[in-house]
Amino acid sequence: MDPEAQPQVTWRPGDRITSAADYRASLRGRDLAVHLMGERISEPLDHPIVAPSVNAMAATYELAEDDPQLASAESDLIHAPVNRFLHVTGSADDVVAQNRMQRRLGQMTGTCFQRCVGMDAINSLFSLTYDVDQGTHSGYHARFTSWLAEVQRQNLVIGGAMTDPKGDRSKSPTQQHDPDLFVRVVERRSDGVVVRGAKVHQTGAVNSHWMLVMPTMRLAESDRDYAVVVAVPVGAPGLTYVYGRQASDTRAMSQQGIDVGNACFAGQEVTVIFDDVFVPTEHVFMDGEWQYAADLVERFTSYHRRSYVCKTGVGDVIIGAAAQAAEYHGVAGASHVKDKIVEMVHLNETIYGSGLASSFESFQRPAGNFENNGLLANICKHNVTRFPYEIGRLAQDLAGGLLVTLPGEEEFDDPEVGPLLDKYLSTGTEIPVEDRRRILRLIENMTMGRNAVGYLTESLHGAGSPQAQRVQIARQADLSDKKAMARRLAGIPDHH
Amino acid sequence: MDPEAQPQVTWRPGDRITSAADYRASLRGRDLAVHLMGERISEPLDHPIVAPSVNAMAATYELAEDDPQLASAESDLIHAPVNRFLHVTGSADDVVAQNRMQRRLGQMTGTCFQRCVGMDAINSLFSLTYDVDQGTHSGYHARFTSWLAEVQRQNLVIGGAMTDPKGDRSKSPTQQHDPDLFVRVVERRSDGVVVRGAKVHQTGAVNSHWMLVMPTMRLAESDRDYAVVVAVPVGAPGLTYVYGRQASDTRAMSQQGIDVGNACFAGQEVTVIFDDVFVPTEHVFMDGEWQYAADLVERFTSYHRRSYVCKTGVGDVIIGAAAQAAEYHGVAGASHVKDKIVEMVHLNETIYGSGLASSFESFQRPAGNFENNGLLANICKHNVTRFPYEIGRLAQDLAGGLLVTLPGEEEFDDPEVGPLLDKYLSTGTEIPVEDRRRILRLIENMTMGRNAVGYLTESLHGAGSPQAQRVQIARQADLSDKKAMARRLAGIPDHH
Amino acid sequence: MDPEAQPQVTWRPGDRITSAADYRASLRGRDLAVHLMGERISEPLDHPIVAPSVNAMAATYELAEDDPQLASAESDLIHAPVNRFLHVTGSADDVVAQNRMQRRLGQMTGTCFQRCVGMDAINSLFSLTYDVDQGTHSGYHARFTSWLAEVQRQNLVIGGAMTDPKGDRSKSPTQQHDPDLFVRVVERRSDGVVVRGAKVHQTGAVNSHWMLVMPTMRLAESDRDYAVVVAVPVGAPGLTYVYGRQASDTRAMSQQGIDVGNACFAGQEVTVIFDDVFVPTEHVFMDGEWQYAADLVERFTSYHRRSYVCKTGVGDVIIGAAAQAAEYHGVAGASHVKDKIVEMVHLNETIYGSGLASSFESFQRPAGNFENNGLLANICKHNVTRFPYEIGRLAQDLAGGLLVTLPGEEEFDDPEVGPLLDKYLSTGTEIPVEDRRRILRLIENMTMGRNAVGYLTESLHGAGSPQAQRVQIARQADLSDKKAMARRLAGIPDHH
Amino acid sequence: MDPEAQPQVTWRPGDRITSAADYRASLRGRDLAVHLMGERISEPLDHPIVAPSVNAMAATYELAEDDPQLASAESDLIHAPVNRFLHVTGSADDVVAQNRMQRRLGQMTGTCFQRCVGMDAINSLFSLTYDVDQGTHSGYHARFTSWLAEVQRQNLVIGGAMTDPKGDRSKSPTQQHDPDLFVRVVERRSDGVVVRGAKVHQTGAVNSHWMLVMPTMRLAESDRDYAVVVAVPVGAPGLTYVYGRQASDTRAMSQQGIDVGNACFAGQEVTVIFDDVFVPTEHVFMDGEWQYAADLVERFTSYHRRSYVCKTGVGDVIIGAAAQAAEYHGVAGASHVKDKIVEMVHLNETIYGSGLASSFESFQRPAGNFENNGLLANICKHNVTRFPYEIGRLAQDLAGGLLVTLPGEEEFDDPEVGPLLDKYLSTGTEIPVEDRRRILRLIENMTMGRNAVGYLTESLHGAGSPQAQRVQIARQADLSDKKAMARRLAGIPDHH
Repeated sequence: MDPEAQPQVTWRPGDRITSAADYRASLRGRDLAVHLMGERISEPLDHPIVAPSVNAMAATYELAEDDPQLASAESDLIHAPVNRFLHVTGSADDVVAQNRMQRRLGQMTGTCFQRCVGMDAINSLFSLTYDVDQGTHSGYHARFTSWLAEVQRQNLVIGGAMTDPKGDRSKSPTQQHDPDLFVRVVERRSDGVVVRGAKVHQTGAVNSHWMLVMPTMRLAESDRDYAVVVAVPVGAPGLTYVYGRQASDTRAMSQQGIDVGNACFAGQEVTVIFDDVFVPTEHVFMDGEWQYAADLVERFTSYHRRSYVCKTGVGDVIIGAAAQAAEYHGVAGASHVKDKIVEMVHLNETIYGSGLASSFESFQRPAGNFENNGLLANICKHNVTRFPYEIGRLAQDLAGGLLVTLPGEEEFDDPEVGPLLDKYLSTGTEIPVEDRRRILRLIENMTMGRNAVGYLTESLHGAGSPQAQRVQIARQADLSDKKAMARRLAGIPDHH
Repeated sequence: MDPEAQPQVTWRPGDRITSAADYRASLRGRDLAVHLMGERISEPLDHPIVAPSVNAMAATYELAEDDPQLASAESDLIHAPVNRFLHVTGSADDVVAQNRMQRRLGQMTGTCFQRCVGMDAINSLFSLTYDVDQGTHSGYHARFTSWLAEVQRQNLVIGGAMTDPKGDRSKSPTQQHDPDLFVRVVERRSDGVVVRGAKVHQTGAVNSHWMLVMPTMRLAESDRDYAVVVAVPVGAPGLTYVYGRQASDTRAMSQQGIDVGNACFAGQEVTVIFDDVFVPTEHVFMDGEWQYAADLVERFTSYHRRSYVCKTGVGDVIIGAAAQAAEYHGVAGASHVKDKIVEMVHLNETIYGSGLASSFESFQRPAGNFENNGLLANICKHNVTRFPYEIGRLAQDLAGGLLVTLPGEEEFDDPEVGPLLDKYLSTGTEIPVEDRRRILRLIENMTMGRNAVGYLTESLHGAGSPQAQRVQIARQADLSDKKAMARRLAGIPDHH
Repeated sequence: MDPEAQPQVTWRPGDRITSAADYRASLRGRDLAVHLMGERISEPLDHPIVAPSVNAMAATYELAEDDPQLASAESDLIHAPVNRFLHVTGSADDVVAQNRMQRRLGQMTGTCFQRCVGMDAINSLFSLTYDVDQGTHSGYHARFTSWLAEVQRQNLVIGGAMTDPKGDRSKSPTQQHDPDLFVRVVERRSDGVVVRGAKVHQTGAVNSHWMLVMPTMRLAESDRDYAVVVAVPVGAPGLTYVYGRQASDTRAMSQQGIDVGNACFAGQEVTVIFDDVFVPTEHVFMDGEWQYAADLVERFTSYHRRSYVCKTGVGDVIIGAAAQAAEYHGVAGASHVKDKIVEMVHLNETIYGSGLASSFESFQRPAGNFENNGLLANICKHNVTRFPYEIGRLAQDLAGGLLVTLPGEEEFDDPEVGPLLDKYLSTGTEIPVEDRRRILRLIENMTMGRNAVGYLTESLHGAGSPQAQRVQIARQADLSDKKAMARRLAGIPDHH
Repeated sequence: MDPEAQPQVTWRPGDRITSAADYRASLRGRDLAVHLMGERISEPLDHPIVAPSVNAMAATYELAEDDPQLASAESDLIHAPVNRFLHVTGSADDVVAQNRMQRRLGQMTGTCFQRCVGMDAINSLFSLTYDVDQGTHSGYHARFTSWLAEVQRQNLVIGGAMTDPKGDRSKSPTQQHDPDLFVRVVERRSDGVVVRGAKVHQTGAVNSHWMLVMPTMRLAESDRDYAVVVAVPVGAPGLTYVYGRQASDTRAMSQQGIDVGNACFAGQEVTVIFDDVFVPTEHVFMDGEWQYAADLVERFTSYHRRSYVCKTGVGDVIIGAAAQAAEYHGVAGASHVKDKIVEMVHLNETIYGSGLASSFESFQRPAGNFENNGLLANICKHNVTRFPYEIGRLAQDLAGGLLVTLPGEEEFDDPEVGPLLDKYLSTGTEIPVEDRRRILRLIENMTMGRNAVGYLTESLHGAGSPQAQRVQIARQADLSDKKAMARRLAGIPDHH
């Protein structure tokens, strides 16, 4: 649990990243323009607010080392094992394996480990560039796979960048008062394109090596310049990163760390501004094919909405924390306590079931890769927008009022006040009061602190807000079939 | 939709049943002691209350003919295709295929088609008799497979008989005031055993050819005589069947049938009394091995709780009916109507997802067959105890108040009153008022009439009542793992 | 519990009704055109399907005798005590007293006692006719109170008739393909008007003496002929009544009655057709004042949506039945059983709280009578559209599977089968099996049988379907105030 | 909204507090031992983390000035108007008025204003000391009213101190490993008593003038020393206050304050340690009467559980904030947005209804004061443990993902980054980006920041955790009545 205690690292740019230590090394010296709390922070991974998010991403490397079967796969592109987050799915089992890996990482970190967007983006683009090629002979697919093969070789982190600011939501990109409210190509050169705009809500951007920039919604012909997919190095000139401020984030600056709740791990949300960023042709995977934007978004959200089973791993942690708190409080045997834990498990596994079923029900795209069932993916995500809130409420129920009245660590460390607090918070058992404090601070962290962002609000809005799922469910539900079934059983003839 | 319009049938006892018509023929002439409405009914399938349940069972034969890939499978026992309801699962895909078939049959019938209990029972016993043999050299497995092979050859219906009356629920079988409140062996002869007792809530018993009698719960050593598994022909001497009376069941006696709602299909629930029924040794698959009773029940309920995805097929019908009603009423475009349909679909697919995931996550038993994931099966069934009620409520919402104030068919047929009703219930469109009536009566049938039994109450209590699932979820949730995850992230050392 | 065992009755038309026996007598000899099951039934109160609804209405007379403080009040119109259902509210306490009486009658009957619509209609019209008079000098208020005084003197039942068939819901009355789809004045004579049309979903119509016909929604100037309020005797020439067919209604025709569930009481829903019914001027309380239609509907639904606290009385019965069933089954002490009962009570009292609060928060109209708070009335009714379904689900949970597999009373009475059933359904206690059967049939009656109509579907649609409440809640919520509060606390200046 | 901009204050100890400014002055110079963030803070009201809680309490004085009818009442003790928080209820209307005042203060502050515990404590003790006197001639009632009269005269704040640490929850006070885990009398002197122990979760303690110390649960005879009720000045020697650390509390230390969300108001939760505090006899209102402890707790929780309608005032703010955010985002007209706001209002008013009904249904105690209905109070509070979480979830839904990815105010103020952020977060309307930020930070504050403590977790645990309400609901539901109603309707004779 001391992620900074790393061996000597000799990694250099271009080398394959072979460990979490290499990964950390790879983030140094990039001179990114990252703004946080009024400062441009030179090495984000050294900043106490950023570091926990680097740790969470690093866990994706650690798991690949510790459990390669779970977190790596054989790539058809480079004919070598690659981190599963960089793998193009070759079977339904591969799609399912993503879910198992996501749950495990949720359990390990208790937060968002930020690498799923890239995984889902490469799988969407793998099939989409292939399909675009069929119609347009664009050559995008070859470009894309060539780029991806190199990323696999170096074992890099890809972030996906989809969500534009959108301005006035009732207007299309070209109708906005400012044409930059969606990312667009502002110049086409012989050797590449120049893009401008911003992407908001970017998960793990600063911890990535590449960003895959994609359009965020269905486009019309007049939006042609907005139909752009490019890969951009995170350190490319013209990029500015503004770090979001979240609940209780400054707790990570405390020394001892009990009150942080989860001392090692947190998510990361950044606003990224593209101030005329040049992208060479070899990294342009769509430019102007507006007809395919909706399809790309649908494929991506299909993968990504089922990726939210990661929250069941986080759910395992919060259920465990609540059960542990009840045990520390001496009430683990009460029937209502046991019943609440069953309810939490039931809700958590219901999410898992719908996500897993979506992955199992995968089908093969003409490009050869496998894609999960879209309807069930939306069902999964829609459950994710509801159940974590109820799980969180039940965790707070089991935690008790001390969750929000607990004195801070300085008071417990105070020679005069500390012993009094220890005296009065003792349950007379061998459970140290510090352990009770730690578990309560973890539950606070996950339900109203820094990781509530990932467990609750991101569960609501990530991969599309609830209404986006409802729109998709309506489209995919095949109501005419269902109505025909009903008419048949009701004995209504087919005269309509 | 006229299931009785059948070709000439030449089936004779012992022949393979090759069609729904054969199946109907096989039910005739058995002289069962079936009691209903104060009568012993000679040919149940001719009774208007029973006939719809025969039709539902017959659909399992029809589907095997119409879609053999879905509803049949190659048997390793007889090396020939068999109805999937008689098949021992040879892969996870086989387990999944059961779910797909169940949903389809739910869509076709809008009710309980009654054949899942037998399917789940043979799969449980296939592995359990094998495991019992390992410990006891009982030879049960060979006996069981030999019997099953013959049933497969003849393509018969097996009903599973598990639920004893239980008497005082706080007492074990031997502690009851009457030792017969659980089925037991009352005599052991050289050539077989004699069993006495009753089984309640028997689904489709009268429509079956064989009953597989099994214990209903964990047994103690003193309950040895109750640890009995036998196969009994439905027509065996000593068996009495008492048909249950259900909501609106007499509507099936009307002539025109609009008010029945679902004119063709219904479920069947029977109380079966075993008045010293003799079972030859070759049909005895457990006798006294009380230690295995709990395991058998757990295997059976694991299969069976995920079999409740059949209700998503029924759910498809009710969703379709509600959508159709809204369309007939002219309100299909209202945003709240569309939103309610999305909610219904969401709940229905959530059930499907958890069931399907359970089946996909199957593992192989030493006997060779595959069994689904127990935790997810309980999750599936637990959702089934909740969501159909909400789906039903939403269907009633979309149906409107006419659902419960609609005049009866005699009034619509009345030369004086009928035209007035048609005048006042017209919406001015081409939709005949009769179609509106039919769809409303179908929704009534499924939410408060005869098939509400299957869609609602059986969803609650079949395969174990809600609390039974909660007990299993508590046992299978692996809380100690979850607590360890939480302690690790909270920084709590492993001193406990 | 033998409501037919009545003393000698000497009541004659025009006499004051002084007892339930008088009330029954008053229903005889009216030669109403009531159609049910293909017959015109001469004396509805003698028909086994209708009789239970007469009993429920009669309970409103019995309660006024047995507990006059609860169910009667001093009328300012006739300066004598009147049945509270005929009373114009003189204080907030009067409005609250209606709720207490409604709950009590729900407890007494376990169903809809059908007299609230009239009570809410007279209170709405009392103030509305007054307000119309202020603008139009119509004299409606005097006419109305004069008529009402006479009804009070005779202690008659008033039914309210509001819901028109509506045809195509996207069209106004005059836009329909048939102008009769809303009740309207088709002829104006010197001494009165002639009305034509129909009213659907009429609760208790056949059991009433008068119907107050009112428009069902907001009207436009072109709908002037539809803006009509009249009082019509139930036996007026030109009226046809078509009785609705409901779940399990024919059970009431069985002799012994155990399987009916609730042998004495049920609701009544009728379609009423007005085939050119003449109404003398003295009974016309609105004719053409289309501007007031929306206001009348709003006042009526405000009263009536809070009248649905009657369902908490029915809820008391179903909670009691579930608790009794659990006790009979021997599981009353299980913690999950106790917890489910608490949940049922919680939901039931939540409904009661919102209804009661609405009544307590009454305000005085210029006419002098008191009207409850509209927002809270909508809240109350909206809870009623949800909670009874969950209460019903929990009742079915506690009832167990026997609820839907229980044999019929003929089988229990059968000399051969009956003793076997009694043997196997015994719990070894002193509880007779018949008592268990009775309580299960009552729960069946209330959750999927005849009184499920009143407890569930009518809870959904009566006094307006769920969406109607949401529209009203949106209008009455005063969002601009709430937004201002938020802006103030967020420190947003008032520049908008 | 600048609560510190106060006129010159001349208040001196002993003077009547006549304004919020006087109140602030009264908190100065008390030299309390308050510990927070490793320091003993000399003047809490000057500490940026404490100040917002002082402002919230001060609002109770402001409202009494601005709307005396709502927030003050005529006292029978001093025959003068007093702040309603100090008033002994003289009618059901008085009890209802408390609810109206609480909602208004919730709307004004968006948080817990901390003065209800004292109000509910004085009303409970007013009747309880009277009842104790009847049995014991203790003279407590006279002592209590004498003290209260003086508090009314000076217009002071009373905090109620009930919740002991409790140690091992399966043990009584005397069975604990440390006898101090419940507050107790450790010494009885001729002129008073000495108490020792601690009270946790003390709301507003540091902002009060007096604490009313009460036992926390039912006591046995052996717990006699724990049956103690005393009034203690907040500045009494021997008292130590340890301030709790809550989510995002340090945001209050920022200068500009946009990111605080609610710049002015917050709650306060403190652990209070009683290190042998002397209490003179005149302030002892119970000492040893263990039989009355349960009754006192029940009266207090009855008042207090209905006091949680304050959360509907906070709910008004969060609903307003969500509606405002939707408007700023340009989506206020979307049907799903409007529907979610209706749902929030519905849930909020459902809470209000149950609380209000409880108050309206008040009864008079022999002491003369009025007490609300206990069952409905528990219903109200139980809804409070559920609905604010769903309201909060819906508010986050309407707020959008920006809620948790928004950059901090330093970045918006940065001359380089700020304009970029303003450019990209513009919606092209006249809505300043700063207003959007402010409303989002308010929603963050209320759902996962500092005031989430009051709106969510305190809603769960204050006045007793959910299970405490369920226990009371079970006791107050009168199941035997309900069972009798069911048996009667089922036709079950009274042989049991």
